[in-house]
Amino acid sequence: MLTVGKELLIGRTLNTNAHWAGARLAKIGTMLKEITTVDDDLAEISRALRACLARSPDVLVIVGGLGPTPDDMTLRGVAMGLGKKLRVNRAALEMVKEHYARRGMGSVEMTPARKKMATLPVGAEPLANEVGTAAGVRVEMRRTVVFCLPGVPAEMRSLFSRFVMPEVERRLGPLGRKALRMKVEGVFESALAPLIEKELKLYPGTYIKSHPRGIKEGRSRIELDIVSVKKTREEAEKIGDAVASDMVRAIRGAGGSIVWSRGLKLEGD
Amino acid sequence: MLTVGKELLIGRTLNTNAHWAGARLAKIGTMLKEITTVDDDLAEISRALRACLARSPDVLVIVGGLGPTPDDMTLRGVAMGLGKKLRVNRAALEMVKEHYARRGMGSVEMTPARKKMATLPVGAEPLANEVGTAAGVRVEMRRTVVFCLPGVPAEMRSLFSRFVMPEVERRLGPLGRKALRMKVEGVFESALAPLIEKELKLYPGTYIKSHPRGIKEGRSRIELDIVSVKKTREEAEKIGDAVASDMVRAIRGAGGSIVWSRGLKLEGD
Repeated sequence: MLTVGKELLIGRTLNTNAHWAGARLAKIGTMLKEITTVDDDLAEISRALRACLARSPDVLVIVGGLGPTPDDMTLRGVAMGLGKKLRVNRAALEMVKEHYARRGMGSVEMTPARKKMATLPVGAEPLANEVGTAAGVRVEMRRTVVFCLPGVPAEMRSLFSRFVMPEVERRLGPLGRKALRMKVEGVFESALAPLIEKELKLYPGTYIKSHPRGIKEGRSRIELDIVSVKKTREEAEKIGDAVASDMVRAIRGAGGSIVWSRGLKLEGD
Repeated sequence: MLTVGKELLIGRTLNTNAHWAGARLAKIGTMLKEITTVDDDLAEISRALRACLARSPDVLVIVGGLGPTPDDMTLRGVAMGLGKKLRVNRAALEMVKEHYARRGMGSVEMTPARKKMATLPVGAEPLANEVGTAAGVRVEMRRTVVFCLPGVPAEMRSLFSRFVMPEVERRLGPLGRKALRMKVEGVFESALAPLIEKELKLYPGTYIKSHPRGIKEGRSRIELDIVSVKKTREEAEKIGDAVASDMVRAIRGAGGSIVWSRGLKLEGD
């Protein structure tokens, strides 16, 4: 995912779009490989786009910079990065007109700023934005499908759900997932480390991560995430449960306790 | 800035570290050029590090992955990316020991997991962490100073303030900054676009950005940011005020109004 916008670089706006998309993808058993944020700048956008494409991802999602203002230059940057020309797209133009008409602006004057939102790299396809003004864009480059989505969260989410998720799901095929979480007290993270390492060797590909949550009354507090993704839900559950029960046993053996847990059946509780 | 951690890619944790650091830097008149987030993976970290260094930044800040668990592998990734060996650093070892001793753990056993936190790329220097366990790390590579900071926000902020900010300020020299913000109603973003474009031509290097905030009772609502950074505070204020007063005049001329503003003296209010 490539997120474009100075507001993300100067601490004006939290990158909730990448966060939201990451969670959506994790839920279906895949994940964002990288998130890169660059400035509203033609050279920056086209350079970052090329760096992303060099990694041949299945899908590249570019977020932000599709609006009418001068610093909205994602489509120009994408055209530059892909080595394609820009051309006014008739379908996109209709989408923009329709948006303003719906907002009760009657007959809509297509100012240069508005026309810009309908000027796409040649070969690209506009994606109807049901929530805002700027259409999304879909364009293929070798094995990668590139999506450009507006940065306004409601618009981004709507287009991501309607266009990106189906593309990802199609490429992924069916997968099962089991996620567990527990809060642990009385064991230091450095003591958990070898336990985690052992489980990762037993069940490679499983996600086991500890998050330190401070120390209270001399007792270290840690949140522990376990995620297992397999070809079927049954297999994912089997592995996830096995890892979790090994961890619980080891934590208790090391003098720790489980404060709360999610997705976990605790023996002896 | 390179932020490392699967939790950032799967929507488990918002990247508040990059957000906070971006705001700190913007306040002194500079900015993050890029934020990249990658997984806890040796190949990913070393590849991303090399890509960042290829751009020859003044400063590269790497955040996360300094802890004791197996998925904390930033220092190994950095060593790989820089083509340096890893070696136990005596000063870093003392820092880790001292941390556990302070926590009331008496004589501290240096397990492999703890020793790992003191194993740095050759030539690197540990930075004392006053808030948590893992020391920060500073290492130079050609013209770039690379900082590695822990991902726990309180620790990251403490080390960023004490070590990164002084380095940035030293390289930057003195600068002045003026920031203004206003809420505008009754003008569409597409109508603001040519006004902004005109100001950007008059005052190149000024930051002018509109953020759409929805439409209420048929009136478009927009927040507008104006930031001017110059060699002195006086010059920055002069330019910032000039741009703001041009924008206010143009917005009112287009039938819009200013709902509220910050940093702005409005004539006729």
